[in-house]
Amino acid sequence: MKQSRLFTKTRKEVPADETSHNAQLLIRAGYVHKEMAGVYAYLPLGIRVLEKIKEITRQEMNAVGGQELIMTALQRKEIWERTNRWDDSMVDVWFKSELKAGGEVGFGWSHEEPIGEMMKNYISSYKDLPVYVYQFQTKLRNELRAKSGIMRGREFVMKDMYSFCVGEEDHTAFYNATMDAYMRVYARLGIAEDTFITFASGGAFTQFSHEFQTITDAGEDVVYFNREKNIAINEEVLNDETLTKLGITRDELQMAKTAEVGNIFNFGRQKAEDIGLTFKDESGENIPIWMGSYGIGITRLMGVVVEKFSDDKGIVWPESIAPYQVHLVELSGDNEEIKDFANGLYNTFNDNGVHVLYDDRDVRAGEKFNDSDLLGMPYRIVVSKKTKEEGKFEVVERANGTVHYLTEEELHHKFLGANS
Amino acid sequence: MKQSRLFTKTRKEVPADETSHNAQLLIRAGYVHKEMAGVYAYLPLGIRVLEKIKEITRQEMNAVGGQELIMTALQRKEIWERTNRWDDSMVDVWFKSELKAGGEVGFGWSHEEPIGEMMKNYISSYKDLPVYVYQFQTKLRNELRAKSGIMRGREFVMKDMYSFCVGEEDHTAFYNATMDAYMRVYARLGIAEDTFITFASGGAFTQFSHEFQTITDAGEDVVYFNREKNIAINEEVLNDETLTKLGITRDELQMAKTAEVGNIFNFGRQKAEDIGLTFKDESGENIPIWMGSYGIGITRLMGVVVEKFSDDKGIVWPESIAPYQVHLVELSGDNEEIKDFANGLYNTFNDNGVHVLYDDRDVRAGEKFNDSDLLGMPYRIVVSKKTKEEGKFEVVERANGTVHYLTEEELHHKFLGANS
Repeated sequence: MKQSRLFTKTRKEVPADETSHNAQLLIRAGYVHKEMAGVYAYLPLGIRVLEKIKEITRQEMNAVGGQELIMTALQRKEIWERTNRWDDSMVDVWFKSELKAGGEVGFGWSHEEPIGEMMKNYISSYKDLPVYVYQFQTKLRNELRAKSGIMRGREFVMKDMYSFCVGEEDHTAFYNATMDAYMRVYARLGIAEDTFITFASGGAFTQFSHEFQTITDAGEDVVYFNREKNIAINEEVLNDETLTKLGITRDELQMAKTAEVGNIFNFGRQKAEDIGLTFKDESGENIPIWMGSYGIGITRLMGVVVEKFSDDKGIVWPESIAPYQVHLVELSGDNEEIKDFANGLYNTFNDNGVHVLYDDRDVRAGEKFNDSDLLGMPYRIVVSKKTKEEGKFEVVERANGTVHYLTEEELHHKFLGANS
Repeated sequence: MKQSRLFTKTRKEVPADETSHNAQLLIRAGYVHKEMAGVYAYLPLGIRVLEKIKEITRQEMNAVGGQELIMTALQRKEIWERTNRWDDSMVDVWFKSELKAGGEVGFGWSHEEPIGEMMKNYISSYKDLPVYVYQFQTKLRNELRAKSGIMRGREFVMKDMYSFCVGEEDHTAFYNATMDAYMRVYARLGIAEDTFITFASGGAFTQFSHEFQTITDAGEDVVYFNREKNIAINEEVLNDETLTKLGITRDELQMAKTAEVGNIFNFGRQKAEDIGLTFKDESGENIPIWMGSYGIGITRLMGVVVEKFSDDKGIVWPESIAPYQVHLVELSGDNEEIKDFANGLYNTFNDNGVHVLYDDRDVRAGEKFNDSDLLGMPYRIVVSKKTKEEGKFEVVERANGTVHYLTEEELHHKFLGANS
C-alpha cells in the first residue's frame, strides 16, 4: 500500500472523552475511528489487524474441529424467554427494539440460545455428536459505561464457539483441546507468557469456569497468580476453599491487573435442558446434550496487544498481526533515481507476497519517522541517497530499535518469500 | 471437508412460513437457517459461498482503488438529524433503541452519514482527494414485509462504497470505472448476461440513478430492456421524457421481472453540504465534496444466483462461488480398499488446494446422489468398485449432467493446481 493513497493520516488530537491508552494510540495512528463511547469503526490499517487476529483464531478453531458459521444480530424474544434471559432484570445489556411487523426484537449480546435452538434441526441422535461450531460475531451490549477503548465495547467482535457432546468424557477432551488452542492463539499474538488460565466463578452449572487473563494495567480484573506452579485465581473466587482445592497458599500468589482475553464454560446438561435440545442415545432415550461455550474477544485482543506492545513513540505490532510487515520509507528528496529505486523494491516486495506499507509521501524525513514509529510496523526499511551510495539499506526493528545495514541481497534473503 | 463431519444435513421440510424458492432450497440443503422472517444465519456451506462472493467483490473494489474499512452498527442520533434522516417519517426502516447511559441509538440501515462525518477527520484539502472507501456491512432494516428469502432481509450483508472527489470530472471517471467493476463482479458470478445497467429514479440530486437489475421471476422490480441497444429502464421512470432522452421507443423494449443487485448514486455536492464535509481548493476556498455511493447486496446476490441456477433437483453453483468445487462421492459398500482409495484422492485434492467436499458417509448411493444434486457442487466425482476395476472415474457436471470418464491422470490434469 502506498501511504500517499491511504486516506487515513496520523493525528495529534483524539476526542476529548477518549481516556483509554489503546484507543488514543489507535485513533492517533488512524487504525480506528470513535463513533461513540465503546463503539469504534476499523479503518484500513485497523481492519487488516483484525482480520489477521481472526485468521489466527480461525486456524486454531478449525484445528480442533470447529465449523465456522455466522448467526444473526436480530434475536427472537421467544427463544430467550424459554431460558429466562429475555427480561432486563435477568440480562442488563440487551438492546431491544420494536418490529414494524409487530412484536419485540433483541440484538445479539450472546448466541448460546439461538445456536442451541438451531441445532435442533441437525442433532437428533448420538450419531450426530459431537458438533463444534464457532463464529466471528459483532456483539451488541448496552453497557452503562465503556471507558476501556476497544477493550470493552458496546459493539465488538467476538469469536464464540459452542460444543455439543454426548457426555462429560467427550466434553472434557474437547474442553482441554480448546484450552490448548486458546493458548496457541495467545502465543501467536505474543502474549502467552503473560496470559494465565485462571479459575473464576463458574456460574450456574459448575464451581469454576476458566478465564484466560492477560496481565495489563488497562485490565478491569484482578488475578492472583504463581508463574512456577502455573496457577491463577480471579479475586472473585480467592478464598480458603479455593486455595485448599488448588493446593496453594495466599503467600505464594502475586497480584496483577489483568484483562480477560478468553473464557470457557462447561454447561453440563443444564443449558441444553433449558433450551430443549436432546439426542437419542443407543437405547433410544432422549438425553439433554452436554454443552460448552468458548469465547475470545477479537477486538479486545487487539486492544490488549496495543496496551502491552507500545512505547512513548507509538504502537509496536507483533509480526503475526501487524497490518504490514515492512514499512518502506523513501527519503528521496525529489531525487527521481532514489524514488525509482524505492518503487522497484516496493514492487518486488509486493510481487513476493510481503505485506509492505510504502511511505512515498512528499513530507519531511522527521515526519515520516515519527509516523512510522506511531504506526508500528515490525521493520522499517529506509531508502535514501546514502542507501544508493553505500549499497546498504538501513533496517530498523521497531520492537527494540536494533539497526541493521543490509545489502540488497541480504534484504531479499530476509524478507522475500517470508510468509506474512 | 468430510461430509460425515459436517453438522448440517439436507432436510425435506422447510419452515411453514418460508415461501421463497431461494430460501427453501438453501434451508433444505443446509446452507442457511431461518432465524425469523428476513433474518437468516449462514451455516458452514453458506458462509463459504458468502465469503467467495465477498472476495470477488473485494478484488474488484480494490482494483478501482477502494480501501476497505468497517463502520459500526450503532448509530448516533445527531449525525442523522443533521441530514434530516433520523425521524421515522423520513426513514421508515430504522431500528432504534435506548442507551442505558441515556439517549437514543439507531442501528445502521445505511452508512453515508457516519462515513461522511468520519471523513472530516481525514479530508481537509484538495490534496487529500480523491478517496474511495468500502465495507462489507451487516445492515439492519425494519422492513414491514420480508418474503423474498435471502433476497430481501431485515438483516443482510451489503458492500457499500463511497467516493469523495473534488468535482464532477473526477467523480464521473470513478463512477464509470465502478460501473465496469460491478459488471465484472456479475460476470464472475455468471449473471452478467442477464444483468442490465438500468435507468432508475435519481432521488434528490440527479434525474437518474443507475441500478443493476438481473432478470429473475423472484425479483421485486420490473424493467423494460433492449438487449441489442443495451438499454434498460426501471418502470418507475418509464415515460415519454425518458424514452426520448434515451432515443428508444416503447415498442423496442421487452419487459422482465428483475432483482436489483447493485445501485450507484451521484450525490453531487449536496450530500456533503448537508453533512458539512468540505475541502479547501487551491485558492483556499471551502467547497463541499462531490460524493457518490455504490452498493452491492452480497447476500441478495447469493439468493439471485440460487434463483437463476437451480433445477428440480437442487442448486447449481457457478464454479466461482461454489462452497466446494468438487463433490467426491465414495460408494465403497464397506470395501476398505475403495475407501482408502477415495480417501487418498481426497487428501491429494486437499494438498493441492482443490476445495472438495467428500461424501464419506455410510448411507445409500441414492441418498448420496440426491444430496449431491441438492447441494450443487459443479463437479461430482464418483469412486466405486467399478472405478477401481476400470481405472476410470465418473465425473458429472452438475450444470448440464454431462458425464466424463477420466483416468486418474486425466483427473489430476483437470482439477489439480486449479485455482478454486
